[in-house]
Amino acid sequence: MSEQLKVGVAGLGLIGEVRARNIAQLPTARLRAVASRRAEVAKEVAQRYSADRFYTDYTDLFSDSELDAVIISTAVVDHVDHIIQAAARGLHIFVEKPVAFALADIDRAAAAVAEAEVYCQVGFQRRFDPGYVAARQQIEQGVIGRPVLFKGVSRDPFWPEKQDGPGYNTTFLDLGVHDFDLARWLMGSEVREIYATGATLVYPKLAEFGDLDNAVISLVFENGALGCIDLSRNARYGYDIRTEVLGDEGALLIGDLQQTSLITLTRQGVCHDVYPWYLDRFEEAFKIELATFVETVQSGQPPEVGIDEARRATQIGLAALESWQSKQAVLMVT
Amino acid sequence: MSEQLKVGVAGLGLIGEVRARNIAQLPTARLRAVASRRAEVAKEVAQRYSADRFYTDYTDLFSDSELDAVIISTAVVDHVDHIIQAAARGLHIFVEKPVAFALADIDRAAAAVAEAEVYCQVGFQRRFDPGYVAARQQIEQGVIGRPVLFKGVSRDPFWPEKQDGPGYNTTFLDLGVHDFDLARWLMGSEVREIYATGATLVYPKLAEFGDLDNAVISLVFENGALGCIDLSRNARYGYDIRTEVLGDEGALLIGDLQQTSLITLTRQGVCHDVYPWYLDRFEEAFKIELATFVETVQSGQPPEVGIDEARRATQIGLAALESWQSKQAVLMVT
Amino acid sequence: MSEQLKVGVAGLGLIGEVRARNIAQLPTARLRAVASRRAEVAKEVAQRYSADRFYTDYTDLFSDSELDAVIISTAVVDHVDHIIQAAARGLHIFVEKPVAFALADIDRAAAAVAEAEVYCQVGFQRRFDPGYVAARQQIEQGVIGRPVLFKGVSRDPFWPEKQDGPGYNTTFLDLGVHDFDLARWLMGSEVREIYATGATLVYPKLAEFGDLDNAVISLVFENGALGCIDLSRNARYGYDIRTEVLGDEGALLIGDLQQTSLITLTRQGVCHDVYPWYLDRFEEAFKIELATFVETVQSGQPPEVGIDEARRATQIGLAALESWQSKQAVLMVT
Amino acid sequence: MSEQLKVGVAGLGLIGEVRARNIAQLPTARLRAVASRRAEVAKEVAQRYSADRFYTDYTDLFSDSELDAVIISTAVVDHVDHIIQAAARGLHIFVEKPVAFALADIDRAAAAVAEAEVYCQVGFQRRFDPGYVAARQQIEQGVIGRPVLFKGVSRDPFWPEKQDGPGYNTTFLDLGVHDFDLARWLMGSEVREIYATGATLVYPKLAEFGDLDNAVISLVFENGALGCIDLSRNARYGYDIRTEVLGDEGALLIGDLQQTSLITLTRQGVCHDVYPWYLDRFEEAFKIELATFVETVQSGQPPEVGIDEARRATQIGLAALESWQSKQAVLMVT
Repeated sequence: MSEQLKVGVAGLGLIGEVRARNIAQLPTARLRAVASRRAEVAKEVAQRYSADRFYTDYTDLFSDSELDAVIISTAVVDHVDHIIQAAARGLHIFVEKPVAFALADIDRAAAAVAEAEVYCQVGFQRRFDPGYVAARQQIEQGVIGRPVLFKGVSRDPFWPEKQDGPGYNTTFLDLGVHDFDLARWLMGSEVREIYATGATLVYPKLAEFGDLDNAVISLVFENGALGCIDLSRNARYGYDIRTEVLGDEGALLIGDLQQTSLITLTRQGVCHDVYPWYLDRFEEAFKIELATFVETVQSGQPPEVGIDEARRATQIGLAALESWQSKQAVLMVT
Repeated sequence: MSEQLKVGVAGLGLIGEVRARNIAQLPTARLRAVASRRAEVAKEVAQRYSADRFYTDYTDLFSDSELDAVIISTAVVDHVDHIIQAAARGLHIFVEKPVAFALADIDRAAAAVAEAEVYCQVGFQRRFDPGYVAARQQIEQGVIGRPVLFKGVSRDPFWPEKQDGPGYNTTFLDLGVHDFDLARWLMGSEVREIYATGATLVYPKLAEFGDLDNAVISLVFENGALGCIDLSRNARYGYDIRTEVLGDEGALLIGDLQQTSLITLTRQGVCHDVYPWYLDRFEEAFKIELATFVETVQSGQPPEVGIDEARRATQIGLAALESWQSKQAVLMVT
Repeated sequence: MSEQLKVGVAGLGLIGEVRARNIAQLPTARLRAVASRRAEVAKEVAQRYSADRFYTDYTDLFSDSELDAVIISTAVVDHVDHIIQAAARGLHIFVEKPVAFALADIDRAAAAVAEAEVYCQVGFQRRFDPGYVAARQQIEQGVIGRPVLFKGVSRDPFWPEKQDGPGYNTTFLDLGVHDFDLARWLMGSEVREIYATGATLVYPKLAEFGDLDNAVISLVFENGALGCIDLSRNARYGYDIRTEVLGDEGALLIGDLQQTSLITLTRQGVCHDVYPWYLDRFEEAFKIELATFVETVQSGQPPEVGIDEARRATQIGLAALESWQSKQAVLMVT
Repeated sequence: MSEQLKVGVAGLGLIGEVRARNIAQLPTARLRAVASRRAEVAKEVAQRYSADRFYTDYTDLFSDSELDAVIISTAVVDHVDHIIQAAARGLHIFVEKPVAFALADIDRAAAAVAEAEVYCQVGFQRRFDPGYVAARQQIEQGVIGRPVLFKGVSRDPFWPEKQDGPGYNTTFLDLGVHDFDLARWLMGSEVREIYATGATLVYPKLAEFGDLDNAVISLVFENGALGCIDLSRNARYGYDIRTEVLGDEGALLIGDLQQTSLITLTRQGVCHDVYPWYLDRFEEAFKIELATFVETVQSGQPPEVGIDEARRATQIGLAALESWQSKQAVLMVT
């Protein structure tokens, strides 16, 4: 085995802490440091997962000369700046999705990564979920023939108000990007045309941000295949992620609505639970994703999900936004 | 097409009325007459399903010179007398299960049927359910290899008090016979050994009749395969019939716990309904069963489920009863 | 019970024969006559279901003075002419969907029905499927709160070539109308805006007819709710009809992908069957639908699904067609 | 947080390695050492999970003065000797199930543990599976009323030949003990009576060891409730663990037959995968189990699953064995 990759984690929100824990548990990596502006949190997480040290300033983390790689789990608006800093220090980078809300910003990040010749993986964890991995394999094996329709469902159980900054359409650009990424990945074709409708039906406050809580998006792929995606912030029953690919010889359904294996039968009928949140649904995918990051950095293989792929997903999200605003179908420029 | 079979229905309880309706709907049969001791019921059912006439005395029905066949849906304790009467008139017979609670009674009925050279089918409708039919076909095709374990679940949502007469163990002899019949039919082997435990845990009144509300039965088949069956009168959530066959190359599960195709997702989880009662679960099987009866009578084929097969199922039920009472395993005499 | 309704069936294709059988089996109705241009078929079906007579000319059927009502299961292009003839004879009418492919034709039929003051029900059988009925009830009871998203999937296992005439877009106007009807019925709001994409990916021949084999349709309802529907002719695995309603307090899923209750477990995994065709999936709904037709005619209640409702579904289909052709969203004129 | 518990792992077979990895990943514990008679394995596992050291002699591990606790994942026949050694060194103990194949051996182990006043938890991991935990909670909350029937299914996909030593009935004493433990735990009552049937139908070689490959066991609990368990070594389709509790107000089903969330629909039907093996099905339970071990040792709480509970499960297994051999029901001595 090669030496352990020394990793730092910047940003210790919900997902940042998961990243720290997963790095700490990887035999192939070592949790060198964590950083959060909230000193208490940084200290506690460092202690819990035996990080060698903690910082309250991200720049200090990026300057840690012992680091090989950094995980950027900070606010989306800070991603690009942090990527640029980390790249400048020669650090390999794992950054949460979306990389940014604007293509120009992603381009700046990509340029910095290219110039520094560092590795940069973007956190589309669904690509590492065993169900999605098996789906892709079956598509490649021809099990369902030629894919002709992509369907995506991404529904949060509520609008996570605190996490969203004002002024950004997070429904298309933060929630929807997962589906835009899956669409390209599973269909093996780029999106050519997009039409989006949306509404603010449950959280009026979202309208103030130019955001929405429910959306339906139609896609046409370059190879002629079709797609549709629905996004919602009000799946009160749980975290509901389902994906479907229809081919000319069969179909695949990915996603399930049951967390534990308990089914309860009473006079009220037959009932079971649902995954409450993305950290539960993709717990395993998050682990495999980071293990893959470490492994590809160590082996020098090309990144599984590079910054260029993230750019394309965001590009689709921006086209969806434009379509929604203009009430016109939007042709992708490629 | 041959001429319509002219059928009479004796007994118009829950299942008797279903039989009348199903005969009325068969293009191959004609509902000649119905009979019930309750004159109003007989009249109403005759009218509803366009029977040519109705009787309030079963003997009058059996004496109807226009009849080709009769369905005996009367009380279990009257089955044998009615079979003997019908056979004596040369009528073909469909009789509900169980034929009787004692082997000697079944033997008398069988003798009458044999002497009159009439056709007699016994109402084990599960054998006509499309799921069970497909299961048997897959076993015959070797899909699961050699069957090594039979499992049966038969659970009523409640104890149908009024239908049971005092003094009979209906749990083994009325509910369980379905599983005993399926066991022989699906495993392709006779039962050699049986051990039964049981208890009166929910309906104390059943103990007065020498009956019980929950039972677990172990089986060993002549070919060495094993079996277990659980019976209950208190499946509050619905009518629960599940069967399983494990082979040395796979397994089959038959039975489901969902009636309509609606699934409801709320904060309480994911829920759906259950079949409430046997008339719902086996609605289609009851139709196919009678169509088969009519067809085999008309074509002169041997009966699908003859009185000898019913005898064997009851024999297993009696052995279960003996085992429960003696707390010993019972060897079947064959 | 009121006297039996004397019913004739015009057209004896797949669905026409089902109609004849279901009428024959209804205690509330009598199968007076059937009609088909194929004399042999008419004769055989009449005999099989004990119709009093058969015709080889539809006009003869509509002229039968014994008839109370007629079921029009003829080719879509003949529907309107047949409705007008039947209405002129004072017959109550049950007509298959779609009533016609053009609004002007539907309007002519509606005028004839109105003038003759006869009853006219259109065959949207999904509204009578127990799962859909339960879904509507739960929506009305507020189980899922306010509906904000409608989703429909209608996929045929293949393109039923023979049934389609050249020159009509049957995907939107024949297959899709079911979903357009469900959308209005379950969401309790009219469609305001529609955007459709589609493609001919599997059956090139369909392009000659201005038809397509896969389509994705986005909807906006008058109350602001959203919708999306996907239609396909190539669900090789079976007949796949699923509907979903997301509310602000929960969601409903209607539709299932399992026909019999058998599950097979082998080294290849866990497998079960699928409904092969609409006659299987909606067998029960077709029966309830006709029973309701007879019952409402006999009781003088307003029709469950009137010709005006069918008009609205077709109107949505035509808007979808226009959208697909123009590549623009289409606003519904109401 | 209290200081990390320094843990050693004795035995590095399939499960031993999982234990080492899980300890290495626990923030509350430190993997002090691993031991295996196979030097290469010991070295490799130690390196992979950053153990401080490794041993090739178990006695050396137990003598490591830095250890707080030891996990005994060695062969069943060595468990008791290893427990005694570890207890003598004052080490807290986690031992795999079954503790031993004979009650006298378990008693010797229990005495050593008691004398040394160390903590000893036995590895019944199903008790930590989220589905089983939720089931127990619902039973305690009265969701299904009073439990009246326990059902257990434990089926291995094959007979893991190498792991079994000659001369022991591993089906009852190694596989079945899980169900015997669950039975007591979920029903809240001891087993009073047991009857077992079994056969060697697939692996003739097992007969040489007095073992069997399929078994059916009936139980009667002290409170009068019933139970049945089936055990098999030939579930070719995968690792099949299902448990059911029927109460007088409802029922619980625990266990599922799907691993990833992918469903494949083709002309062959609807198919999905199955858990291949216990390490997959109980991956999470194994982690929670060890975390609980560490937590209870650190907090001084009583063990979740003590050696006395393991004794009772084995006692039921021995009674099953006796019943099978004697063909008599066996009354438990308590």
